[in-house]
Amino acid sequence: MARWEPDARGRLVVAAVDLFTEQGYDATTVAQIAERAGVTKSTFFRYFPDKREVLVAGQETLSRLLAEGIAEAPAAASPLEAVAAGLERVSSAMGPMNRDLGPRLKAAVAASAELQERDALKSVGLAAAMTTALIARGVPDTTAQLAGELGVLAFKRGYSEWSEGDRESDHELAHYTLAALDELRAASASLG
Amino acid sequence: MARWEPDARGRLVVAAVDLFTEQGYDATTVAQIAERAGVTKSTFFRYFPDKREVLVAGQETLSRLLAEGIAEAPAAASPLEAVAAGLERVSSAMGPMNRDLGPRLKAAVAASAELQERDALKSVGLAAAMTTALIARGVPDTTAQLAGELGVLAFKRGYSEWSEGDRESDHELAHYTLAALDELRAASASLG
Repeated sequence: MARWEPDARGRLVVAAVDLFTEQGYDATTVAQIAERAGVTKSTFFRYFPDKREVLVAGQETLSRLLAEGIAEAPAAASPLEAVAAGLERVSSAMGPMNRDLGPRLKAAVAASAELQERDALKSVGLAAAMTTALIARGVPDTTAQLAGELGVLAFKRGYSEWSEGDRESDHELAHYTLAALDELRAASASLG
Repeated sequence: MARWEPDARGRLVVAAVDLFTEQGYDATTVAQIAERAGVTKSTFFRYFPDKREVLVAGQETLSRLLAEGIAEAPAAASPLEAVAAGLERVSSAMGPMNRDLGPRLKAAVAASAELQERDALKSVGLAAAMTTALIARGVPDTTAQLAGELGVLAFKRGYSEWSEGDRESDHELAHYTLAALDELRAASASLG
Protein backbone atom coordinates (compact mmCIF):
# COMPACT_ATOMS: atom_id res chain seq x y z
CA MET A 1 0.00 0.00 0.00
CA ALA A 2 1.39 3.42 -0.95
CA ARG A 3 2.45 5.65 1.92
CA TRP A 4 -0.10 8.36 2.55
CA GLU A 5 1.33 11.81 1.64
CA PRO A 6 -0.46 14.75 3.16
CA ASP A 7 -0.53 18.17 1.52
CA ALA A 8 0.48 21.36 3.35
CA ARG A 9 -2.86 21.69 5.08
CA GLY A 10 -2.77 18.07 6.22
CA ARG A 11 0.84 18.42 7.39
CA LEU A 12 -0.10 21.48 9.46
CA VAL A 13 -2.89 19.55 11.17
CA VAL A 14 -0.62 16.61 11.96
CA ALA A 15 2.19 18.91 13.20
CA ALA A 16 -0.19 20.88 15.42
CA VAL A 17 -1.75 17.81 16.98
CA ASP A 18 1.65 16.25 17.62
CA LEU A 19 3.03 19.41 19.23
CA PHE A 20 -0.10 19.91 21.36
CA THR A 21 0.29 16.36 22.63
CA GLU A 22 4.07 16.53 23.17
CA GLN A 23 4.41 19.89 24.86
CA GLY A 24 0.87 21.06 25.61
CA TYR A 25 -1.51 23.34 23.80
CA ASP A 26 -0.58 26.54 25.63
CA ALA A 27 3.16 26.12 25.03
CA THR A 28 2.78 25.55 21.29
CA THR A 29 3.15 28.50 18.90
CA VAL A 30 2.06 28.94 15.31
CA ALA A 31 5.74 29.33 14.37
CA GLN A 32 6.53 25.91 15.83
CA ILE A 33 3.62 24.28 14.02
CA ALA A 34 4.69 25.81 10.71
CA GLU A 35 8.31 24.74 11.24
CA ARG A 36 7.36 21.16 12.08
CA ALA A 37 5.16 21.02 8.97
CA GLY A 38 7.96 22.44 6.80
CA VAL A 39 6.04 25.53 5.74
CA THR A 40 6.21 29.26 6.54
CA LYS A 41 4.04 31.07 9.09
CA SER A 42 2.24 32.87 6.29
CA THR A 43 1.33 29.52 4.76
CA PHE A 44 -0.14 28.57 8.14
CA PHE A 45 -2.30 31.68 8.14
CA ARG A 46 -3.48 30.94 4.61
CA TYR A 47 -5.22 27.87 6.03
CA PHE A 48 -6.11 28.75 9.64
CA PRO A 49 -6.86 31.94 11.60
CA ASP A 50 -5.13 30.65 14.75
CA LYS A 51 -3.77 27.51 16.37
CA ARG A 52 -7.05 26.55 17.98
CA GLU A 53 -8.89 26.36 14.69
CA VAL A 54 -6.46 23.73 13.44
CA LEU A 55 -8.19 21.26 15.70
CA VAL A 56 -11.65 21.92 14.39
CA ALA A 57 -10.43 22.04 10.83
CA GLY A 58 -13.08 20.73 8.61
CA GLN A 59 -16.10 21.56 10.77
CA GLU A 60 -17.69 23.49 7.91
CA THR A 61 -16.96 20.72 5.45
CA LEU A 62 -18.37 18.11 7.82
CA SER A 63 -21.51 20.18 8.34
CA ARG A 64 -21.98 20.69 4.63
CA LEU A 65 -21.56 16.99 3.80
CA LEU A 66 -23.94 15.91 6.55
CA ALA A 67 -26.55 18.40 5.36
CA GLU A 68 -26.13 17.39 1.70
CA GLY A 69 -26.52 13.72 2.48
CA ILE A 70 -29.68 14.44 4.47
CA ALA A 71 -31.11 16.71 1.77
CA GLU A 72 -30.55 14.13 -0.95
CA ALA A 73 -31.99 11.14 0.92
CA PRO A 74 -35.11 9.68 -0.75
CA ALA A 75 -38.30 11.59 0.02
CA ALA A 76 -39.73 8.56 1.78
CA ALA A 77 -36.75 8.20 4.14
CA SER A 78 -37.49 8.43 7.86
CA PRO A 79 -35.61 11.05 9.93
CA LEU A 80 -33.00 8.49 11.02
CA GLU A 81 -32.69 7.08 7.50
CA ALA A 82 -31.92 10.61 6.32
CA VAL A 83 -29.35 10.99 9.11
CA ALA A 84 -27.82 7.69 7.97
CA ALA A 85 -27.50 9.15 4.45
CA GLY A 86 -25.72 12.18 5.94
CA LEU A 87 -23.36 9.95 7.89
CA GLU A 88 -22.58 7.91 4.77
CA ARG A 89 -21.78 11.07 2.84
CA VAL A 90 -19.49 12.51 5.49
CA SER A 91 -17.84 9.19 6.29
CA SER A 92 -16.86 8.58 2.69
CA ALA A 93 -14.90 11.86 2.73
CA MET A 94 -12.64 10.71 5.55
CA GLY A 95 -9.52 8.75 4.71
CA PRO A 96 -6.25 7.49 6.20
CA MET A 97 -5.20 10.90 7.51
CA ASN A 98 -8.40 11.24 9.53
CA ARG A 99 -7.95 7.73 10.86
CA ASP A 100 -4.35 8.33 11.89
CA LEU A 101 -5.22 11.60 13.58
CA GLY A 102 -7.97 10.22 15.81
CA PRO A 103 -5.96 9.00 18.82
CA ARG A 104 -3.57 11.99 18.75
CA LEU A 105 -6.45 14.43 18.49
CA LYS A 106 -8.14 12.76 21.43
CA ALA A 107 -5.01 13.04 23.57
CA ALA A 108 -4.56 16.72 22.69
CA VAL A 109 -8.19 17.56 23.48
CA ALA A 110 -8.12 15.58 26.73
CA ALA A 111 -5.15 17.66 27.90
CA SER A 112 -6.64 21.12 27.30
CA ALA A 113 -9.80 22.68 28.75
CA GLU A 114 -9.79 25.24 25.95
CA LEU A 115 -9.77 22.55 23.29
CA GLN A 116 -12.52 20.64 25.09
CA GLU A 117 -14.70 23.72 24.88
CA ARG A 118 -13.97 24.22 21.20
CA ASP A 119 -14.63 20.55 20.58
CA ALA A 120 -17.97 20.73 22.40
CA LEU A 121 -19.03 23.68 20.28
CA LYS A 122 -18.06 21.73 17.17
CA SER A 123 -20.53 19.01 18.16
CA VAL A 124 -23.22 21.64 18.68
CA GLY A 125 -22.51 22.93 15.16
CA LEU A 126 -22.73 19.49 13.57
CA ALA A 127 -26.00 18.72 15.38
CA ALA A 128 -27.44 22.07 14.27
CA ALA A 129 -26.45 21.41 10.64
CA MET A 130 -28.29 18.08 10.68
CA THR A 131 -31.31 19.49 12.51
CA THR A 132 -31.65 22.32 9.98
CA ALA A 133 -31.37 19.91 7.04
CA LEU A 134 -34.04 17.66 8.58
CA ILE A 135 -36.43 20.56 9.22
CA ALA A 136 -36.00 21.52 5.56
CA ARG A 137 -37.30 18.02 4.72
CA GLY A 138 -40.44 18.70 6.75
CA VAL A 139 -39.40 16.81 9.91
CA PRO A 140 -41.01 18.45 13.00
CA ASP A 141 -38.59 20.55 15.08
CA THR A 142 -38.37 18.32 18.13
CA THR A 143 -37.88 15.14 16.11
CA ALA A 144 -35.29 16.91 13.96
CA GLN A 145 -33.35 18.11 16.99
CA LEU A 146 -33.37 14.65 18.51
CA ALA A 147 -32.30 13.02 15.24
CA GLY A 148 -29.48 15.58 14.90
CA GLU A 149 -28.21 14.70 18.37
CA LEU A 150 -28.31 11.00 17.54
CA GLY A 151 -26.37 11.75 14.38
CA VAL A 152 -23.60 13.49 16.33
CA LEU A 153 -23.42 10.68 18.88
CA ALA A 154 -23.22 8.12 16.07
CA PHE A 155 -20.53 10.08 14.25
CA LYS A 156 -18.38 10.48 17.36
CA ARG A 157 -18.75 6.86 18.42
CA GLY A 158 -18.12 5.55 14.94
CA TYR A 159 -15.08 7.77 14.42
CA SER A 160 -13.67 6.77 17.75
CA GLU A 161 -14.03 3.03 17.05
CA TRP A 162 -12.60 3.37 13.56
CA SER A 163 -9.57 5.43 14.56
CA GLU A 164 -8.81 4.06 18.02
CA GLY A 165 -10.33 0.64 18.42
CA ASP A 166 -10.22 -1.65 15.51
CA ARG A 167 -7.09 -0.38 13.72
CA GLU A 168 -6.43 -3.57 11.77
CA SER A 169 -9.87 -3.70 10.26
CA ASP A 170 -10.40 -2.82 6.61
CA HIS A 171 -13.86 -1.40 7.27
CA GLU A 172 -14.50 2.14 6.13
CA LEU A 173 -15.65 4.78 8.61
CA ALA A 174 -19.23 4.50 7.31
CA HIS A 175 -19.39 0.93 8.62
CA TYR A 176 -18.83 2.21 12.17
CA THR A 177 -20.98 5.34 12.08
CA LEU A 178 -23.95 3.45 10.65
CA ALA A 179 -23.55 0.63 13.18
CA ALA A 180 -23.47 3.22 15.97
CA LEU A 181 -26.63 4.84 14.63
CA ASP A 182 -28.36 1.44 14.59
CA GLU A 183 -27.31 0.88 18.18
CA LEU A 184 -28.68 4.26 19.22
CA ARG A 185 -31.94 3.59 17.37
CA ALA A 186 -32.29 0.32 19.26
CA ALA A 187 -31.48 2.07 22.54
CA SER A 188 -34.14 4.71 21.89
CA ALA A 189 -36.74 1.95 22.10
CA SER A 190 -35.72 1.13 25.66
CA LEU A 191 -35.82 4.64 27.14
CA GLY A 192 -39.16 3.88 28.81
CA MET B 1 -44.57 39.66 46.62
CA ALA B 2 -41.34 40.56 48.40
CA ARG B 3 -38.54 41.83 46.21
CA TRP B 4 -35.95 39.16 45.64
CA GLU B 5 -32.65 40.08 47.35
CA PRO B 6 -29.62 38.27 46.00
CA ASP B 7 -26.56 37.60 48.12
CA ALA B 8 -23.04 38.64 47.06
CA ARG B 9 -22.63 35.64 44.78
CA GLY B 10 -25.96 36.27 43.12
CA ARG B 11 -25.19 39.97 42.72
CA LEU B 12 -21.88 39.13 41.05
CA VAL B 13 -23.63 36.90 38.53
CA VAL B 14 -26.25 39.54 37.73
CA ALA B 15 -23.60 42.28 37.45
CA ALA B 16 -21.42 40.17 35.15
CA VAL B 17 -24.28 39.19 32.84
CA ASP B 18 -25.47 42.80 32.62
CA LEU B 19 -21.99 44.13 31.83
CA PHE B 20 -21.34 41.39 29.26
CA THR B 21 -24.58 42.35 27.53
CA GLU B 22 -24.08 46.11 27.77
CA GLN B 23 -20.46 46.43 26.74
CA GLY B 24 -19.41 42.99 25.51
CA TYR B 25 -17.63 40.12 27.20
CA ASP B 26 -14.11 41.05 26.13
CA ALA B 27 -14.38 44.65 27.34
CA THR B 28 -15.62 43.66 30.81
CA THR B 29 -13.12 43.32 33.65
CA VAL B 30 -13.37 41.58 37.00
CA ALA B 31 -12.92 44.98 38.69
CA GLN B 32 -15.99 46.34 36.88
CA ILE B 33 -18.08 43.31 37.80
CA ALA B 34 -17.09 43.63 41.47
CA GLU B 35 -17.82 47.38 41.48
CA ARG B 36 -21.26 46.92 39.90
CA ALA B 37 -22.08 44.23 42.46
CA GLY B 38 -20.90 46.43 45.31
CA VAL B 39 -18.14 44.08 46.48
CA THR B 40 -14.33 44.04 46.35
CA LYS B 41 -12.25 42.20 43.76
CA SER B 42 -11.08 39.79 46.42
CA THR B 43 -14.71 38.94 47.17
CA PHE B 44 -15.15 38.19 43.46
CA PHE B 45 -12.22 35.78 43.57
CA ARG B 46 -13.65 34.07 46.62
CA TYR B 47 -16.53 32.91 44.42
CA PHE B 48 -15.08 32.60 40.91
CA PRO B 49 -11.64 31.91 39.39
CA ASP B 50 -12.27 34.29 36.44
CA LYS B 51 -14.98 36.20 34.62
CA ARG B 52 -15.85 33.36 32.30
CA GLU B 53 -16.70 31.00 35.12
CA VAL B 54 -19.36 33.42 36.34
CA LEU B 55 -21.50 32.34 33.42
CA VAL B 56 -21.29 28.67 34.15
CA ALA B 57 -21.71 29.26 37.85
CA GLY B 58 -23.58 26.39 39.30
CA GLN B 59 -22.60 23.73 36.77
CA GLU B 60 -21.30 21.49 39.55
CA THR B 61 -24.43 22.06 41.61
CA LEU B 62 -26.66 21.32 38.63
CA SER B 63 -24.72 18.12 37.87
CA ARG B 64 -24.92 17.00 41.48
CA LEU B 65 -28.68 17.61 41.74
CA LEU B 66 -29.39 15.85 38.44
CA ALA B 67 -27.32 12.86 39.54
CA GLU B 68 -28.95 12.73 42.99
CA GLY B 69 -32.44 12.83 41.53
CA ILE B 70 -31.57 10.01 39.15
CA ALA B 71 -29.92 7.93 41.89
CA GLU B 72 -32.90 8.26 44.20
CA ALA B 73 -35.58 7.44 41.63
CA PRO B 74 -37.52 4.23 42.44
CA ALA B 75 -35.70 1.05 41.43
CA ALA B 76 -38.47 0.23 38.93
CA ALA B 77 -38.19 3.60 37.14
CA SER B 78 -37.34 3.47 33.43
CA PRO B 79 -34.28 5.44 32.21
CA LEU B 80 -36.43 8.43 31.20
CA GLU B 81 -38.42 8.27 34.44
CA ALA B 82 -35.12 8.48 36.30
CA VAL B 83 -34.08 11.45 34.14
CA ALA B 84 -37.43 13.07 34.98
CA ALA B 85 -36.62 12.64 38.68
CA GLY B 86 -33.27 14.35 38.08
CA LEU B 87 -34.96 17.22 36.26
CA GLU B 88 -37.47 17.64 39.08
CA ARG B 89 -34.67 17.77 41.61
CA VAL B 90 -32.64 20.36 39.73
CA SER B 91 -35.65 22.43 38.69
CA SER B 92 -36.84 22.83 42.25
CA ALA B 93 -33.50 24.43 43.15
CA MET B 94 -33.97 27.25 40.64
CA GLY B 95 -35.85 30.35 41.72
CA PRO B 96 -36.60 33.94 40.67
CA MET B 97 -32.95 34.86 40.19
CA ASN B 98 -32.45 32.06 37.69
CA ARG B 99 -35.61 33.04 35.87
CA ASP B 100 -34.59 36.71 35.66
CA LEU B 101 -31.15 35.81 34.42
CA GLY B 102 -32.29 33.63 31.51
CA PRO B 103 -32.79 36.24 28.78
CA ARG B 104 -29.74 38.28 29.78
CA LEU B 105 -27.58 35.18 29.91
CA LYS B 106 -28.80 34.19 26.47
CA ALA B 107 -27.92 37.60 25.03
CA ALA B 108 -24.45 37.55 26.58
CA VAL B 109 -23.70 34.04 25.26
CA ALA B 110 -25.06 34.87 21.80
CA ALA B 111 -22.61 37.77 21.58
CA SER B 112 -19.40 35.87 22.46
CA ALA B 113 -17.82 32.88 20.73
CA GLU B 114 -15.81 32.19 23.87
CA LEU B 115 -18.95 31.99 25.99
CA GLN B 116 -20.66 29.78 23.41
CA GLU B 117 -17.80 27.34 23.72
CA ARG B 118 -17.93 27.37 27.51
CA ASP B 119 -21.69 26.94 27.37
CA ALA B 120 -21.39 23.97 25.00
CA LEU B 121 -18.96 22.28 27.37
CA LYS B 122 -21.38 22.91 30.24
CA SER B 123 -24.01 20.89 28.36
CA VAL B 124 -21.52 18.08 27.79
CA GLY B 125 -20.85 18.06 31.54
CA LEU B 126 -24.53 17.89 32.47
CA ALA B 127 -25.15 15.07 29.99
CA ALA B 128 -22.16 13.15 31.36
CA ALA B 129 -23.40 13.56 34.94
CA MET B 130 -26.77 12.08 34.00
CA THR B 131 -25.24 9.29 31.92
CA THR B 132 -22.95 8.27 34.79
CA ALA B 133 -25.84 8.27 37.27
CA LEU B 134 -27.93 6.12 34.91
CA ILE B 135 -25.11 3.62 34.34
CA ALA B 136 -24.81 3.33 38.13
CA ARG B 137 -28.49 2.24 38.12
CA GLY B 138 -27.66 -0.56 35.70
CA VAL B 139 -28.85 1.16 32.51
CA PRO B 140 -26.79 -0.05 29.50
CA ASP B 141 -24.20 2.50 28.29
CA THR B 142 -25.81 3.44 24.98
CA THR B 143 -29.28 3.87 26.48
CA ALA B 144 -27.78 5.88 29.35
CA GLN B 145 -25.93 8.18 26.97
CA LEU B 146 -29.04 8.77 24.91
CA ALA B 147 -31.17 9.40 28.01
CA GLY B 148 -28.54 11.86 29.29
CA GLU B 149 -28.70 13.79 26.00
CA LEU B 150 -32.48 13.90 26.17
CA GLY B 151 -32.20 15.19 29.72
CA VAL B 152 -29.97 18.07 28.64
CA LEU B 153 -32.23 18.96 25.73
CA ALA B 154 -35.25 18.92 28.05
CA PHE B 155 -33.49 21.05 30.65
CA LYS B 156 -32.40 23.65 28.10
CA ARG B 157 -35.79 23.83 26.38
CA GLY B 158 -37.67 23.98 29.66
CA TYR B 159 -35.39 26.65 31.10
CA SER B 160 -35.68 28.70 27.96
CA GLU B 161 -39.49 28.59 27.95
CA TRP B 162 -39.70 29.35 31.66
CA SER B 163 -37.31 32.29 31.61
CA GLU B 164 -37.98 33.77 28.18
CA GLY B 165 -41.36 32.67 26.92
CA ASP B 166 -44.11 32.49 29.40
CA ARG B 167 -43.00 35.13 31.92
CA GLU B 168 -46.44 35.75 33.41
CA SER B 169 -47.07 32.11 34.20
CA ASP B 170 -46.89 30.89 37.79
CA HIS B 171 -45.62 27.49 36.75
CA GLU B 172 -42.37 26.33 38.30
CA LEU B 173 -39.41 25.38 36.13
CA ALA B 174 -40.15 21.67 36.66
CA HIS B 175 -43.42 22.07 34.76
CA TYR B 176 -41.48 23.11 31.65
CA THR B 177 -38.56 20.70 31.86
CA LEU B 178 -40.87 17.71 32.38
CA ALA B 179 -43.15 18.80 29.53
CA ALA B 180 -40.10 19.13 27.28
CA LEU B 181 -38.95 15.63 28.27
CA ASP B 182 -42.39 14.25 27.41
CA GLU B 183 -42.23 15.95 24.04
CA LEU B 184 -38.79 14.46 23.35
CA ARG B 185 -39.99 11.02 24.43
CA ALA B 186 -42.88 11.28 21.97
CA ALA B 187 -40.52 12.48 19.23
CA SER B 188 -38.20 9.51 19.81
CA ALA B 189 -41.03 7.24 18.69
CA SER B 190 -41.12 8.93 15.28
CA LEU B 191 -37.42 8.76 14.43
CA GLY B 192 -38.06 5.82 12.12
